[in-house]
Amino acid sequence: MNNLRYDIVIIGGGIAGLTAGLYASRAGMDTLLLEGVNLGGQAIVTDLIENFPGFPDGISGIELITRLREQAVKFGLKIESEKADKIIAEENKSKNVRAGDKDIECLGIILAVGAKPMRLGVEGEERLIGRGVSYCATCDGPMYKNKEVVVVGGGDTAVEEALFLDRMCKKIYLVHRKESLRAAKVLQDRMFKSQKIEFLASTVVSEIKGDTRVEEVVLKSLKNGKISSIKTEGIFIFVGTKPDTDFLKGAVDMDQTGYIITNDEMETSAKGIYACGDARKKLFRQLVTAAGEGATAAYACTHYVLSLKGYVYK
Amino acid sequence: MNNLRYDIVIIGGGIAGLTAGLYASRAGMDTLLLEGVNLGGQAIVTDLIENFPGFPDGISGIELITRLREQAVKFGLKIESEKADKIIAEENKSKNVRAGDKDIECLGIILAVGAKPMRLGVEGEERLIGRGVSYCATCDGPMYKNKEVVVVGGGDTAVEEALFLDRMCKKIYLVHRKESLRAAKVLQDRMFKSQKIEFLASTVVSEIKGDTRVEEVVLKSLKNGKISSIKTEGIFIFVGTKPDTDFLKGAVDMDQTGYIITNDEMETSAKGIYACGDARKKLFRQLVTAAGEGATAAYACTHYVLSLKGYVYK
Repeated sequence: MNNLRYDIVIIGGGIAGLTAGLYASRAGMDTLLLEGVNLGGQAIVTDLIENFPGFPDGISGIELITRLREQAVKFGLKIESEKADKIIAEENKSKNVRAGDKDIECLGIILAVGAKPMRLGVEGEERLIGRGVSYCATCDGPMYKNKEVVVVGGGDTAVEEALFLDRMCKKIYLVHRKESLRAAKVLQDRMFKSQKIEFLASTVVSEIKGDTRVEEVVLKSLKNGKISSIKTEGIFIFVGTKPDTDFLKGAVDMDQTGYIITNDEMETSAKGIYACGDARKKLFRQLVTAAGEGATAAYACTHYVLSLKGYVYK
Repeated sequence: MNNLRYDIVIIGGGIAGLTAGLYASRAGMDTLLLEGVNLGGQAIVTDLIENFPGFPDGISGIELITRLREQAVKFGLKIESEKADKIIAEENKSKNVRAGDKDIECLGIILAVGAKPMRLGVEGEERLIGRGVSYCATCDGPMYKNKEVVVVGGGDTAVEEALFLDRMCKKIYLVHRKESLRAAKVLQDRMFKSQKIEFLASTVVSEIKGDTRVEEVVLKSLKNGKISSIKTEGIFIFVGTKPDTDFLKGAVDMDQTGYIITNDEMETSAKGIYACGDARKKLFRQLVTAAGEGATAAYACTHYVLSLKGYVYK
């Protein structure tokens, strides 16, 4: 075991965690960020971010994360690639974070663990992940150049990703269980202008077929129960996200889906543990809201740590 | 009277208002932003912003605001320079915003009115504003090149502004009523390294003297009551901010200082009216938190407007 000591440990290296890291380090806290395996969080799978303030021409998720990482490291943030396995936070002064072979002692913890794509839960889906079943058009889209693909979902992400695929694929079927989309109007307008995207409303995927790779997607109409199918090598699924919080069960209060409950100062039910970003129970999951919460969590956690040290900050 | 109709009117053109404008416009809302006289809000007086995510080399307030303005306008945001004088929001569907000779009807309102520097309240202060008394080092600092100046305050802003003046002034006296500063450690470290900044702890300004311009600042020690004075042409005051919410009295609930009370979905006490940014009662006032709240306010307000229109958004 490697024993380490920090003021603050941040779990998660997406925009919430990195912004928290920037703020905590700049405030003089000795801070370690455990990035985990999902480097950069959900931002990294976004090809062009149009609505992060300050980038009128848009910015790619990878570039935004790279710039923010550089900015946080500049102020002293330490980053390790380990994934946190467990946190032990008893009612005393110090807490422990276990990550691989590391046992890290700290005074405050910031949870910025993000959320992961949800599954459709149909036959063939799990078996064919990475072999035609994808949750990231930016990552896998280019493999389907001039081919026909299926996109599932009706929110901003589904339509954004369909529009991304529009640039390279021959044809995109957008399958949504409801009659109308819930994506922003500007996205819908763009989508309906596309010659390549066909919207299949009130339709669900009932099975994904294929031997070693996706070959066919079976659809069912919710209007008349009719079964149809599309021959395709690729299906992209965007039906929501689930927070990566299983390892936190019992440590902090969550809702039924696993989203962490905080007050508006980002405090969880456990003293000294804060949460921010997509894993938090809240109204609106965006990069800029994650960033704002990261800053607030770092501020609140810094005050908590300084008060433990007997330092009067205010 | 010019009668205008919009879906959403945003009051205030700082980072909160502009981010709300970006999000509301991108969501297809016909949105007008009333910028008022304080173009760009408090961001504009900041010379170098180090902690806005995505800018590892820092960015000036003016540049950030300019870029964000361009980004919001790109998605259709309309901006007018008028200052809102009054809002009339009765328990019916539409609301009215009065601004100069304009009477604007709308369905939703987003308050992003920001906050203004607070006064010390000492003799000579009001009389000599703009004639040696300043609340913005970035704006007025260069006029005191190679001169001695006084800075008042102990928070991040006071120390940041003292460090800004350090680059051009001969000597800076930092006057703070408490024994220690509450600014972030990284800022304090830099300040104490400076050869030019002298920290006068437990000291208050008791009077600002001068005929047509500042000539002398009178100080009083809170330790022993001793009176001293500094011959100076410039005094920069950073002792907090007060929200610009006087015109909203009776329209939405506020705390004693005038900060607008919202829930975590940015809803005020009045249905259809949302608030974000520095004018909101909250823990941490930063550009990135203002931006995050602007996005959330726009999202919540968009849903409200669409529900009034009988549009099912979800």
